[in-house]
Amino acid sequence: MAAGDVVEQQDQPWNRQRLRSTNERLLLERLRADGPTSRAQLARGTGLSKPTVSSALAALESAGLVREVGTHVPERGRTAVLYAPDPTAGHVLGVDIGRSWLRVAVADLDGTVVARSDVRNQARSSGAMADLVVSTARQVVADSGVAPVEVVHAVVGTPGVYDEEHRRVRYAMHLPGWGRAGLFDRMREELGVPLEVHNDANLAALGEYTYGVGAGSRLFAYILIGTGLGMGVVADGRLFTGAHGLAGEIGFLPWPGQQKPERLEDAVSGVAVVEAARRFGMRGQLTAKSVFDAARQGDDAAVRAVRLEGERIAHTVAVAAAVLDPDLVVLGGGVGHSVDLLLKPVRDNLRALTPLRPKLAPSRLGEDAVLLGAVATALGTAREVVFERRSAVS
Amino acid sequence: MAAGDVVEQQDQPWNRQRLRSTNERLLLERLRADGPTSRAQLARGTGLSKPTVSSALAALESAGLVREVGTHVPERGRTAVLYAPDPTAGHVLGVDIGRSWLRVAVADLDGTVVARSDVRNQARSSGAMADLVVSTARQVVADSGVAPVEVVHAVVGTPGVYDEEHRRVRYAMHLPGWGRAGLFDRMREELGVPLEVHNDANLAALGEYTYGVGAGSRLFAYILIGTGLGMGVVADGRLFTGAHGLAGEIGFLPWPGQQKPERLEDAVSGVAVVEAARRFGMRGQLTAKSVFDAARQGDDAAVRAVRLEGERIAHTVAVAAAVLDPDLVVLGGGVGHSVDLLLKPVRDNLRALTPLRPKLAPSRLGEDAVLLGAVATALGTAREVVFERRSAVS
Repeated sequence: MAAGDVVEQQDQPWNRQRLRSTNERLLLERLRADGPTSRAQLARGTGLSKPTVSSALAALESAGLVREVGTHVPERGRTAVLYAPDPTAGHVLGVDIGRSWLRVAVADLDGTVVARSDVRNQARSSGAMADLVVSTARQVVADSGVAPVEVVHAVVGTPGVYDEEHRRVRYAMHLPGWGRAGLFDRMREELGVPLEVHNDANLAALGEYTYGVGAGSRLFAYILIGTGLGMGVVADGRLFTGAHGLAGEIGFLPWPGQQKPERLEDAVSGVAVVEAARRFGMRGQLTAKSVFDAARQGDDAAVRAVRLEGERIAHTVAVAAAVLDPDLVVLGGGVGHSVDLLLKPVRDNLRALTPLRPKLAPSRLGEDAVLLGAVATALGTAREVVFERRSAVS
Repeated sequence: MAAGDVVEQQDQPWNRQRLRSTNERLLLERLRADGPTSRAQLARGTGLSKPTVSSALAALESAGLVREVGTHVPERGRTAVLYAPDPTAGHVLGVDIGRSWLRVAVADLDGTVVARSDVRNQARSSGAMADLVVSTARQVVADSGVAPVEVVHAVVGTPGVYDEEHRRVRYAMHLPGWGRAGLFDRMREELGVPLEVHNDANLAALGEYTYGVGAGSRLFAYILIGTGLGMGVVADGRLFTGAHGLAGEIGFLPWPGQQKPERLEDAVSGVAVVEAARRFGMRGQLTAKSVFDAARQGDDAAVRAVRLEGERIAHTVAVAAAVLDPDLVVLGGGVGHSVDLLLKPVRDNLRALTPLRPKLAPSRLGEDAVLLGAVATALGTAREVVFERRSAVS
């Protein structure tokens, strides 16, 4: 190669403003990952010079994005001030819309929930449900003491798949009328906050990955078994959603039932547990929960129903294993949480079904998985929005 | 923010050598993507200055990585020399090991096959099969006229899943003894070339994505139906392999057969087609191919066997659709290629099974999908190796 070939400076698309903002972003990420950190540690960790770190920190501080949180007194040398992101620089709203419960939380930029409400969902129409979401969210924001304008982003979890183009939900079998157009637009408008909508099992998977047992998994599948059946998949830390956001809609897996083609959801969901218990002779008002409770007491019909549920969940796990090859499968949702009774029959059946047997674990977040997944998802956007907004005005 | 905050030059980890090599790499990629291109076009397309482009091109040319391929005479201005990557700068070896056929190809850096051999696999032991791979590969390299040292990388496709740690194949049910340790080490040693091993369905999916009908798909599933049953998945242009390389091992999907737990492979593979035809009354020496041929002639038992196969493939597609949400599913392999007979029954059954119905298409590459996928995979590494090797000595 001829000597002296170096890219000229003007080839680089950088300019001062962008460098400043890139450095500030870098420091903020570093602080978020490492916890309270001194100027000198930041310089070492990022490769930026100390003067650059100092002025970027000053800018972040005056924008309200970073604050002093204490001091570090080393064995030798001078006492150092420690910095951390200011969690109150913005807030997010997380919502979990389920057939039985509506859960709403406000969290700060660290993800700490500062107010929360769990309300029984007794709405009799999709319009009433949208109203309930709005009124509950307003109440939770009021309870949090956070000014509404400081809630910068909202994420809603719902059964079914959100159709971005028509801004409505599809395939939400257990929420009649919930596929109607205009519902989410109404919530957006009345709440006055950007609002993203995601499948509940996907959010639960993200929640369990971010705050629960999924952390560090390469390929993690969260099976949500409740009124319906769904699965969320996190691959290398990111949601795997397929070509149209339908990945993990395992409720639609064919299941060779008694009647014509049946769906796996009809064989595995809470309704199926109740039906099986009844078929085996249980009487009275039954719910999936009451069947599991009776099984814990040794009721024979209930025990048989739970055993059958174990077989069918094993089938579900075997399908996920052969198609996706997860290293961890978590059982969650109303039925999934009765994992104390289910884990052994699922494992036993799995052994007979397939040589591909991923690690099985109960959800750590339990009923909160969808809600915390909504918060975690909202945080990603909110941190960006708050950074842009506050560095623009400072 | 305080004025004058700019990252100092020494914060950038760049140095002259790395910049040179980065620029050359950028130009080479550009040339590979755009076809014959002039110096001025390269400068416009990359944002590099003309002198930088000129000296980088000179270096690439003297390293044998780029060559002049013609001139462009514009309406106004000077005639421009057009450049393109030199495809003869290195070569790759692709191998497809199947139970019935062994296929081997040598290709240049453009992916053009310059020599090829298809040999019936009549090896009676795994050792004999390894020997056959080595002798066939040597013959094909000799036929290509390429010096063995210019073959810089090899990729082998095989049924089963390659275990990197123990350097052997697992789950290759239809190749007895093929799981033995040492077989691939022997091939590597005797061929004297770095040799990667991949699952055949994965390579077929990559082949069909790179050269066939999969191009542009966001999430593409290739179902390989032959002696066995497998699936390769390409998500956003990259293989989706799961946590341990087992994703798509759908042969292990549970299938509720007559006997105890059966595997889907036993219900869908070529052997199942023959068994079904026999059960419906066909006599004589049967192969999957002869059953399909008889169905084309209207033989009643064969038609029924093909119809049953269509039902079962529909089940397979429905499973892939619910778990992965592909936008395209391609049927390939010995059985998959009889798609003229299968496509309609598969579509009809799918309609009854599930509302999630991805587009279905026959493979464009047919029997060559695994081999061309091996070539495509080898090219990625080979281009990098050739660049490093040639720019180091130039």
